[in-house]
Formats: sequence, structure tokens, C-alpha cells
Amino acid sequence: MTDDLDGPPAADDAPALVEDLAPGACRRLLAAASVGRLAFVEDGYPTVLPVNFVLAGDVIGIRTAAGAKLDNAPQTRVGFEVDEYDEATRSGWSVLVRGVAHEVTDDAAPAYEELRGQALHPWAGDAKPRWLGITIDQITGRRITRG
Amino acid sequence: MTDDLDGPPAADDAPALVEDLAPGACRRLLAAASVGRLAFVEDGYPTVLPVNFVLAGDVIGIRTAAGAKLDNAPQTRVGFEVDEYDEATRSGWSVLVRGVAHEVTDDAAPAYEELRGQALHPWAGDAKPRWLGITIDQITGRRITRG
Repeated sequence: MTDDLDGPPAADDAPALVEDLAPGACRRLLAAASVGRLAFVEDGYPTVLPVNFVLAGDVIGIRTAAGAKLDNAPQTRVGFEVDEYDEATRSGWSVLVRGVAHEVTDDAAPAYEELRGQALHPWAGDAKPRWLGITIDQITGRRITRG
Repeated sequence: MTDDLDGPPAADDAPALVEDLAPGACRRLLAAASVGRLAFVEDGYPTVLPVNFVLAGDVIGIRTAAGAKLDNAPQTRVGFEVDEYDEATRSGWSVLVRGVAHEVTDDAAPAYEELRGQALHPWAGDAKPRWLGITIDQITGRRITRG
């Protein structure tokens, strides 16, 4: 690898502090977000789609309709990501959930009851009669701040 | 599925228009963004990590260091997503790239020459001496606006 790939440091580039976030902090950031990104495998490609969501205990709930998400995600391992960035200060945070997706149906586990009681109004409209639930296996996050 | 899962429509909920974006529009939005989200499979989970990037022709370039991305992404199908949202108007757009990742090394294909000539200063600091390149196979996008 040659040096020119690194390039000169930017003149306004204060040192960055990258820190891992504790699980509790990750949960709070996830709970406060309204847009997340669901990642599932379709045609062999990890596919990332922004979605509105609600969090109910250990389950992330997404309202959806027939299509790529319901065709591919249920009964598979999925990722779910939320983040926030400030271009001006080149700082931000991200939280990543690993979990398993299920379609939430009328006979789904009692663990989904809390989810099903919540109102969620997807930005893309109301023709989303079905729910996808993601049971959280792992949650991690990190924050970049600048001194 | 019972009606209560849908919930009442929000009072301020003007009808949403969801439109697919043409490939040219997707390219322009991708080129103008500075933060994207790389999705690759790790431990069987689609994993989503925000990254700074540059676009050079048909290749997305990401500076990185030894770790999860270089351990898992090269020679696999990956996703790459950029988006922008306005919470106030509940509108936004997203662009999704499907491609194959490669580590960009000194003996990499000439197609990477343009990429290697570009300066990229990752927010997380300068200890990122290696490059991951994503060759774009497909680019799609959509926009949600509100009447």
C-alpha cells in the first residue's frame, strides 16, 4: 500500500475519539429513533432498506406489505441499524442490532403482545397491513467525537 | 390480522407519494453523499456499518483497517446504502447499491486507479491504511414525498 492512498491529513481535522457504547446506551438510542435500516439477504446480497419502527421490549416492530422484506427476512438472521451524524463536526453514533426476523401473526408468541398494541404510522403510507418483528440477539454501538 | 395493528391514521398525515428513482438520479445522490452504510454478512448476520466513502466510476471506495470489514466483505456480495430524511415532513430518499467487495491492493485492476488517486479522510481517524472497493452491480432508489 502506497502512502498516497492515505493522503494528507485535513487541516481542520481534530483528533477523533471512537468509543464503544454500553448496551444500555444503545437501547436508549434505539428507542429514541424513528427511522432504522433493516438488513436482510436477498438474491445473495445484503439488502438495506430504511423503515419506520417501534421498539417493544426485545422486539423491533416494522409495519410492511407483501414484498421483498416479507419474502426474504422471516426466519432468517437480520441486521437493524440506527445512526445519527453531524457533517459539520464529523461526529456521530451508530447502533447495530443482530436478531432473527419473524412475521407477527395473530397466533404469534405472547412476547409480541406489547408490540401489537403499539401504533406505528409508516411514512410511506397506510397500505402496510402486516408486521415484521425482529427479536434482538445482540446490540452494539459506537460513537465518534472530536476533541 | 386485526385492525388494531394498523392504528388510526395520524391527524397530520398527508398522502405519501412513493416513487422509484431513475439510475441517473441514484448515481447523483450517491456521489453527493459522504456517509454511507456498508452491509456484509458476518457470523451469518447481515451487518451494517456507517462509513465515509468516495465514488470513482463504478467503484465505491472505503478506507479501513484490519477488522470485521476486511475479514468478511472481500470477494462477497455486499450492499451499500445512502439516505436522507426529514423527520418534520416525514419525507426522504434512499439509494441501495448491490455489488461485490474487493480489497484494493497495489496490484489491483486498473479500474481502481482513479479510486486510489482520491483523498478520503475517514471521520474515525487516520489509522486506516487499507482500501475496500465495491464494484457496483445494481443501483436502485426511491423517494417519499408528501402532498
